[in-house]
Formats: sequence, structure tokens, C-alpha cells
Amino acid sequence: MEIFYSGDIDGQMLTLDEEETRHCVKVLRHRTGEEIFVIDGRGHLFKCILCSTSGSRARAEIVERTPSWGGHPYHLTMAVCPTKNNERFEWFLEKACEMGVDRIVPLIGEHSERKVYKTERARKILLSAAKQSLKGAVPEMDEPVSVKDFLLSQQPEDPSCRRLIAYCFEAQEDERRSLREMLETPGADRWVVMIGPEGDFSEEEARLALSRGFIPVHFGASRMRTETAALFAVSAVYQHYI
Amino acid sequence: MEIFYSGDIDGQMLTLDEEETRHCVKVLRHRTGEEIFVIDGRGHLFKCILCSTSGSRARAEIVERTPSWGGHPYHLTMAVCPTKNNERFEWFLEKACEMGVDRIVPLIGEHSERKVYKTERARKILLSAAKQSLKGAVPEMDEPVSVKDFLLSQQPEDPSCRRLIAYCFEAQEDERRSLREMLETPGADRWVVMIGPEGDFSEEEARLALSRGFIPVHFGASRMRTETAALFAVSAVYQHYI
Repeated sequence: MEIFYSGDIDGQMLTLDEEETRHCVKVLRHRTGEEIFVIDGRGHLFKCILCSTSGSRARAEIVERTPSWGGHPYHLTMAVCPTKNNERFEWFLEKACEMGVDRIVPLIGEHSERKVYKTERARKILLSAAKQSLKGAVPEMDEPVSVKDFLLSQQPEDPSCRRLIAYCFEAQEDERRSLREMLETPGADRWVVMIGPEGDFSEEEARLALSRGFIPVHFGASRMRTETAALFAVSAVYQHYI
Repeated sequence: MEIFYSGDIDGQMLTLDEEETRHCVKVLRHRTGEEIFVIDGRGHLFKCILCSTSGSRARAEIVERTPSWGGHPYHLTMAVCPTKNNERFEWFLEKACEMGVDRIVPLIGEHSERKVYKTERARKILLSAAKQSLKGAVPEMDEPVSVKDFLLSQQPEDPSCRRLIAYCFEAQEDERRSLREMLETPGADRWVVMIGPEGDFSEEEARLALSRGFIPVHFGASRMRTETAALFAVSAVYQHYI
């Protein structure tokens, strides 16, 4: 099932951008009158009939709407320090989208080797992973933010939202709880999980996180790379709601 | 912590092969009398003192042995059809090893696009992932085998071993149970999980699996690529034992 994306929906009509039009008309050779399926990236699947394929932007009429198509029963924000090797982080983005994630926040930590992160490629990877895994919603991709600014932006009030931070300071080992235990504590359907860089969070960042209501968690005995730990967290949350 | 590997252990002495010796002596410039850490790939970590660094094979004396170093409290065999794009399968191998897997069986299914799989690179990836994630045991890598021959080799008797197969035939949707439900059913500490190719298992392969005592499972609503589904299964088993 081939899925297209449109960010330009006006009542019963939608327009594909130049790239989607090329793929739909030039590559897949869809013609006027044919049925196509389009997501809006916000959760909807539209069954459409192509009305115009001439010019650089195809237009189609919506004949059926499916809300929260391919959705999941939780809201997960992954706030992760991008890895030095960008390919590893991009692999995480694709896999996290396939399993089910809602928002990605690229964090720049004090120990981050990568201090700059461009989100343009990341957005493309998330869009194509959402289409490939038949999801109407494309995960939001934030612009990079420092760990401190991210923490200061968090509102600890919402009781249905559980905020977790994974770090590996051996000193604090006893204070950490297992991700599984946190998932099995009832009352939450919104999750925020912070994953540090290769060099881990700084102690100051960790202290600030705790003061902002984040709960320190561990992922068991295995020592995982940043992107593996991040995907493990997505996988664990997804599994909890199956 | 830099870890070396040796498959040549004789009492208190061990020998590094040429590649490990080059890395230890030429790259990291370790000298006679220095302490190094070596795994045997079967679960042991050895603290050693380098005795000889001349020649192409360094030798070291074992001064301390740690059994089941970086081990996990279950035994997991992942029998997975390698993906058409080999890089995707290699990502799975690395990540599965980081989380915790014991044996990889590359399956060739009737619908496999990849009918040939070379295990040499895979073994290197698993060894380096085991060292990087501080595990004394390197997952076993079987030679590729057809789905049918693999199934015929399985002995359904052992009650502590639970055998699962993930497939997506919509007809059989009701017969499948969730992986989570299976994990939470007590009594098993050994797991075998079969993951099909992009084109799924054939109905004949699935029928044979059921006749051999495999239980059909689903991984929830998300549509995952082969390597994502396989890693999700590893992640779910690992999480269950945390």
C-alpha cells in the first residue's frame, strides 16, 4: 500500500507537493480518476481520487477520512542526545517511528560530542518511516535544545505524564528504578524519557532533572549504546500497551 | 575499558590471535607486564598480565577469572530471515547483542529475497558488539538454514523452552497471542523466536511451525520491518527479565 503525504488540505481537496507529485505521477504513473491514499502527518489517512495530475502539484478529492490511523494508546516524547555518528541516531529515528513515538527532542548535553544537529534530514526520515509503517501521524521533530533549557521548559504538574531520565552514575545506582517497574506503576499515559550522550549527562544536568520531577531509571545490566538505549525505551513503552 | 578476545586458552595462559595482538600491541601499545582484559566468547572475563608481546601472537597469564560476565538470566535464540538489505540485518545483530541474545539462526524462507547469507562478517559484528557492551559471551552465529530444516531440527519436548513464531496472515489474527502475554506466562527461561522475511513466512512454513509446537504471536498494531520486529522481540525478552 503506497502512502503519500500532504500538508495542504482544504476541505474536501488536498494538494501534493512537488516531490510527492513526482513520485505519484511520474514514478508510480497514477492518473486522474485513480484512488490514492494520503496522510496528513497528524494522524489522518485520506482515501482520495486524483483530480488533476498536470503541473507540478497534483490535486485530489478526499472521499474517506480515517482518524488516528496506525496510532498508539500513549504519548511518548524521546529527548535524546544525538550520537556523534549521525547514522546511528537516524537509525533510532526510523525504528522509533516504526514502533511508535510521538515527539523527538534532540538534546545537546554538556558532554555531547555533537553540539549541532540539523533536523531537515531527520524530518524526512520520520516521514518516510511513518508512511512505510502505515501511520497517519509523523512524529514531531523539535529543533535541538540544551539539556538545561529542555528541563526548564518541562512542567512537572501533569500527573498523567511520567518523566524519566536514564543515566549511569554508579554512585546513584540504588536511587534508580527499572523502566519496567515505572511502566507497571499505574496512572500514566504520557511519557518523557531522557537519554544522554556517549559521555552521559553531567551531574549538574542530572541534579536539575531530579529537581524538575524526573525519575532516574535504569535499563537493566546490559551496557547499551545511546541509540540502543533510546530504542529500548521506545520498545518497552510500546510493549507495555500491547 | 578495552576488551580483547582469545579463543586459545591453555590453563593459566592465553594467546591472542594476530588481529587482536596487532590491536593490543601496535595500536594500544600495551607492553609486557601490563594488565589486559580478555573474553573467551563463552562468558568468561579474564584479567591477565601480558607475558610476551614479540611476534605476531601475544601471550598473557590469567590472574583472575569472572564467569558469566555481562550475562543475562535467560537463553534466547533468534531465528530470523536476513533482510534483502544486509546492513539492516547487521544493525539488528549489533543491537541484539548489546541487549542480550544467545544464538542467531539466519533462516532462508520460501519468500526470502536473500537466499544466501555469509556469516563471516556477522561473526565479526557480534564479537565487536560483545566487547563493546562488556559481555563475556559472544552470541553463537549458525550457518544459514531453510525454515523447514530449522523447524525439523527443533525438539518440542523441553517444557522450559517456549517457541514462538511471528507472522502476519490476517486470516489467523485471532489465533495469535501477544508476545507480552507469552512472556508473562510463567515456566519458561529459554526462548526461540522466528521472524520471517519481508514477504512473510509461507502458509506451509507457518503450518509446519505450529505442528512443531511453535506458538503464533503478534507484536501489536505497529507494522515493523523484519529487523525492527526481530529487535523488538529481543528487547521484550530482555525487558521481561530486568
